[in-house]
Amino acid sequence: MLVTPKLIILLLSVLTALDVHEERPYKLLLDDPPNFIVIFADDMGYGDLGVYGHPTIRTPHLDRMAAEGVRFTQFYTGSSVCTPSRAALLTGRLPVRNGMTHDQYRVLFPPSKGGLPGSEITIPEALKDIGYVTSAIGKWHLGHVPGHYPTDHGFDQFFGIPYSNDMTPSASDWEIVQTYPPLPLVRDTEIIETDPDQRLLTRRYTEESVTFIRDHRDRPFFLYLPHTMPHVPLFASDEFEGTSPRGLYGDVIEEIDWSVGQILDVLREIGLDQKTLVIFTSDNGPWLTEGLEGGTAGLLRDGKGTTWEGGMRVPAIAWWPGTIPAGLTSQSLATTMDLMPTIVQLAGAEIPQDRILDGLDLMPVFLDPAASVREEVYFYRGTNLWAVRKGPWKLHYMTQSAYVGDEPIVHDPPILFHLERDPEERFNVATEEEEVISEIQAVVDQHLANLNRAPSQLDVPEWND
Amino acid sequence: MLVTPKLIILLLSVLTALDVHEERPYKLLLDDPPNFIVIFADDMGYGDLGVYGHPTIRTPHLDRMAAEGVRFTQFYTGSSVCTPSRAALLTGRLPVRNGMTHDQYRVLFPPSKGGLPGSEITIPEALKDIGYVTSAIGKWHLGHVPGHYPTDHGFDQFFGIPYSNDMTPSASDWEIVQTYPPLPLVRDTEIIETDPDQRLLTRRYTEESVTFIRDHRDRPFFLYLPHTMPHVPLFASDEFEGTSPRGLYGDVIEEIDWSVGQILDVLREIGLDQKTLVIFTSDNGPWLTEGLEGGTAGLLRDGKGTTWEGGMRVPAIAWWPGTIPAGLTSQSLATTMDLMPTIVQLAGAEIPQDRILDGLDLMPVFLDPAASVREEVYFYRGTNLWAVRKGPWKLHYMTQSAYVGDEPIVHDPPILFHLERDPEERFNVATEEEEVISEIQAVVDQHLANLNRAPSQLDVPEWND
Repeated sequence: MLVTPKLIILLLSVLTALDVHEERPYKLLLDDPPNFIVIFADDMGYGDLGVYGHPTIRTPHLDRMAAEGVRFTQFYTGSSVCTPSRAALLTGRLPVRNGMTHDQYRVLFPPSKGGLPGSEITIPEALKDIGYVTSAIGKWHLGHVPGHYPTDHGFDQFFGIPYSNDMTPSASDWEIVQTYPPLPLVRDTEIIETDPDQRLLTRRYTEESVTFIRDHRDRPFFLYLPHTMPHVPLFASDEFEGTSPRGLYGDVIEEIDWSVGQILDVLREIGLDQKTLVIFTSDNGPWLTEGLEGGTAGLLRDGKGTTWEGGMRVPAIAWWPGTIPAGLTSQSLATTMDLMPTIVQLAGAEIPQDRILDGLDLMPVFLDPAASVREEVYFYRGTNLWAVRKGPWKLHYMTQSAYVGDEPIVHDPPILFHLERDPEERFNVATEEEEVISEIQAVVDQHLANLNRAPSQLDVPEWND
Repeated sequence: MLVTPKLIILLLSVLTALDVHEERPYKLLLDDPPNFIVIFADDMGYGDLGVYGHPTIRTPHLDRMAAEGVRFTQFYTGSSVCTPSRAALLTGRLPVRNGMTHDQYRVLFPPSKGGLPGSEITIPEALKDIGYVTSAIGKWHLGHVPGHYPTDHGFDQFFGIPYSNDMTPSASDWEIVQTYPPLPLVRDTEIIETDPDQRLLTRRYTEESVTFIRDHRDRPFFLYLPHTMPHVPLFASDEFEGTSPRGLYGDVIEEIDWSVGQILDVLREIGLDQKTLVIFTSDNGPWLTEGLEGGTAGLLRDGKGTTWEGGMRVPAIAWWPGTIPAGLTSQSLATTMDLMPTIVQLAGAEIPQDRILDGLDLMPVFLDPAASVREEVYFYRGTNLWAVRKGPWKLHYMTQSAYVGDEPIVHDPPILFHLERDPEERFNVATEEEEVISEIQAVVDQHLANLNRAPSQLDVPEWND
């Protein structure tokens, strides 16, 4: 088993060496492929970390990760809610292309029968082909019936929960939630516990991750660690509960910070730190309507569920000592969808050629944080394009705040913000910048013409099953 | 001249060595007194630096200063506008005690005849007595008629402008401003230019500061550097104008950042870095009504002129390699008024005993950022107490936003926020925390009973002189 992938890697390495790839500014590492770890917080906002300016949440390990790596200030998710955001990260494609979005049922629920289509190619699927061992530890939320399990989508292993931690009778008084089954804790495809003690989830995910890393120190691996927290209901272990000045939300973020420290520490300890690219980011902005149980987007406008900056711009730190420079900040545009082609190319695996990828290879930016590979970011809400960013400009066709009772507003003509001068989206400059709007509109027209929308996999959950 | 102060220092050193001062956790350095530099930005907001989370303003020198020192996340000014804030810093006393505030004329204007009373003891006055050389370079704004010049208040030297850079006909179309004289640039007490090229002010202040530091490398010094920028109208030199993604406001902040780098660099170069305490902070929050010409308070509520957090909580970095630990963040409460007793005690000079000081010695916090010396912060607007912070709690008796047309609101009963859990001041918890309110009220009653208000020095400017 171990020989074949290594042979393939060696073969690919020789082929690559013969190939001309002048446009790639980095040496492919196929003779010694790196490991990859993607740590994905749930509902953590742009302003929730010390290194992103939070005054009372202490994140020394993430601050250190940033001091040893590159911190992004204009990094976006593929969606402002859970399910489509995860689908975007793992496939490198917009949720409208992979079917994991819907205007009404915006995420998967326990009765949902849908999930990520088998025709999609995920990061772990691409890496498995060349011998990586792959593990998902945490919250899945891309389908929880046979055919849609993590192990159906390229992961050798899974440990975690199938969907959000509030989709269980024990977490809520909402009537609809009372009809859901107790939250399952799953290993691979088997339910090993129901209604697990949520205070222990971050700690258990961390222990599983550290064990996975130690067990695979001699083989290239991909670890996807989508935390359950800080999605509500919030839980922290005894070691953290009641310790943060920010209250329970702070306890939860500080435990995730501890977890990041554990993972980077084990990499250093077993000598894999210079062989492992670690990315830390969040699936969408803070859930503002949860009050103090939700986070903050800092200076950015609004939060989770919206196409304002606070909904989709998130903290992001890339760490790979010896390869990624230490302590720099990048203002370059980037998205979670860029991780798929970046990782797949670094591993020496094949980028799918039979479909449109929305992700771009970020390695030039990782190596030189002043470099730029991306010009546009698309802000879909459900299946509709609500806003688009091109360079510093963001054009909104529709907006809606996250607050209950707030109605969608159609902007005709659309409203325009210069996000580098006005990151708070305070000043609509549409009337002064008609030419900019025309340029953006031309890009949008082309984007929509080539969209190839997939049918939604999220519609009509069978609530009464 | 040079011998006498050294003798005094030596004498004080011996006396101090004989004294019992167990409660002081640090060694007094009287045999080798440190230098002090206070860099004071004008209208720079809590969220305007890279190290405080701004996404597009690049501040590598301030980020490095923070990485080599202690960054404060709950640091306050003495007022939310210029004149009283400066009076508070230099005297260690609330503006209501030193007379430098007023409910209507909130700052000094060109026709004003008032200024800081001669009876006040400033930082440079205390230090001059024991042989320090003292210089103010930048914007004064504490009086500009004889008796109120910087050189009347303990500064050996002054280079800069007497008041704000918008108080000049060339800066504004406002009718009242048209009657003002052109902006004077002053050396010591003489006007050396009128209407100086404001694009060069930050650079000229920096050059003057570097020269002052080089010229006094062999003698203890106090340098007070209150920048004119980023107060409107904004100006940057050719090297910075048009370079920041944030636009002109970013250019201006990035030039101040460059200036900080120049100052720390010269200290390193001439070997004074381990002998010099440098503080960087701002006089109040961002001027939000100036639109993109104003800054941002990040996640904090509102801005300049208000008693919301955005008006009075500011960035603050303390740097003293070898004495202050590197790279730590402090959530301890502190204010600009604390600098007076901190500096005076470190120098071995005398703390005035005949008056109430609002400042507290911050050295325990500089040495251990988890330590705490301050329990309360008072938020005056003009001569009235609008809010008070005690520990994590802030009680507002009145509020008024900075926005034009917004009226003051009297809160009866007062409203209460837990600032460590809710730094954005979103959730009034007054009804749930009656006991906390009683405790705060008791502290406020005592504070007001001992206030010793001074008559305002700011009233009735003679507009028609």
